[in-house]
Amino acid sequence: MWCQSCREEYEEDDAGTCKECYEEASETEEELKREIEDLKSKVSFLRLNSPLDLPSPDLFLHAISSPPPPQHDPLTSAPAVPAHRAVLISRSPVFRAMLENEMEESRSGMIKINDVSYDVLRSFVHYLYTAEVLLDEHMACELLILAEKYQVKHLKAFCEKFMTSKVNNENAIANFAFAHRHNSKQLLDAALSLITDNMATLTVREEYKELVEKDPRLVVEIYEAYLTRQVNTAARDIVLPH
Amino acid sequence: MWCQSCREEYEEDDAGTCKECYEEASETEEELKREIEDLKSKVSFLRLNSPLDLPSPDLFLHAISSPPPPQHDPLTSAPAVPAHRAVLISRSPVFRAMLENEMEESRSGMIKINDVSYDVLRSFVHYLYTAEVLLDEHMACELLILAEKYQVKHLKAFCEKFMTSKVNNENAIANFAFAHRHNSKQLLDAALSLITDNMATLTVREEYKELVEKDPRLVVEIYEAYLTRQVNTAARDIVLPH
Repeated sequence: MWCQSCREEYEEDDAGTCKECYEEASETEEELKREIEDLKSKVSFLRLNSPLDLPSPDLFLHAISSPPPPQHDPLTSAPAVPAHRAVLISRSPVFRAMLENEMEESRSGMIKINDVSYDVLRSFVHYLYTAEVLLDEHMACELLILAEKYQVKHLKAFCEKFMTSKVNNENAIANFAFAHRHNSKQLLDAALSLITDNMATLTVREEYKELVEKDPRLVVEIYEAYLTRQVNTAARDIVLPH
Repeated sequence: MWCQSCREEYEEDDAGTCKECYEEASETEEELKREIEDLKSKVSFLRLNSPLDLPSPDLFLHAISSPPPPQHDPLTSAPAVPAHRAVLISRSPVFRAMLENEMEESRSGMIKINDVSYDVLRSFVHYLYTAEVLLDEHMACELLILAEKYQVKHLKAFCEKFMTSKVNNENAIANFAFAHRHNSKQLLDAALSLITDNMATLTVREEYKELVEKDPRLVVEIYEAYLTRQVNTAARDIVLPH
């Protein structure tokens, strides 16, 4: 009889997976759990307080929704989000370039963020301090766009993972197009494989018709993926003659 | 025959630890490793740059070694370490109290740190930003003192763990006394058990004689621990009559 783990033969009268392998496995698990505890305490140590709870901000971020409401100075339309140069520079190479060189934002201490709501901007800045955010599908989508724009890789991956977990038949085409615009490989693959799973209903969908209008190249990509898949399946099913 | 893990009986012809348990164990390991990867990326996201690489510090920390070198203004004797209120407040409740209330340090933007060298202070502040430090035994000891003073629990635990790993017969008594002064339970237990392992040579040691002079109560504690240990051993060795 054989140990499932190390594949060594072991004595009939010994318990199944040889003792060594079994004990080794348990030790590994213990070590991994210890490492997780250490990392968790490091995370909570490194987490900053919310910028709203911290003194002496030296920067203010303004959400500029576009188009701005009529008869409205967009800068006065929503409160500014306070922040600290030191934090933004540590989190984003884009903010670093903006604030380390003598650009207007650096001199004025005011950064305008276009096409974003105040709530999304506040969540974005909060994440830069705490690595925490409560996501729904809209927020994940908006934050992913900001994270990509300011090259906050960690937040982008976090949003992408969340959106990937929410892909379904209803939103697959929209997510496929979104993933394309924002270079989200993981989301793109998930959406595409779901679409190619349901080709029968594809062409009747509204989103499909819109996509043919707006961006036919993406539709071509869907059909190419479908074709590749069929070819591979066929190849697998070929039975070689004896 | 029995599965070592779930203790259920399994088929003779099945491999040792029942497949379920074996596969479950492997999955757990995979999940733990994924969690570790996530936490590591979170740590590297939350880690700030070194304060020396960051702009617009709004605080300066000065190491005041005591006694100060003769004919020397301690403030000018070593360069100041730049820092940011927002970071110090997030890391230490002591700095928070100091900087949120209108104390002199808050008004002047200058914090004097007594009885510490410039190198130690710089490492301390660097750790507050990055959670990184290269320890040797001297540095661990100095940083533990600072970490306790400013209630930076994470750093204190880190130094204590390092010092505990370095306890040996030569430094056990010194570490025992140090652990007492700075409430380091883990280090205290390690040192004490090593001391009680070597009672035969205890009284001839120089550090022992010094301790009897300086702090006899600690010596009493050593003897009490030794006594308890002997009593327990004796209790274990008692053989009950039939």
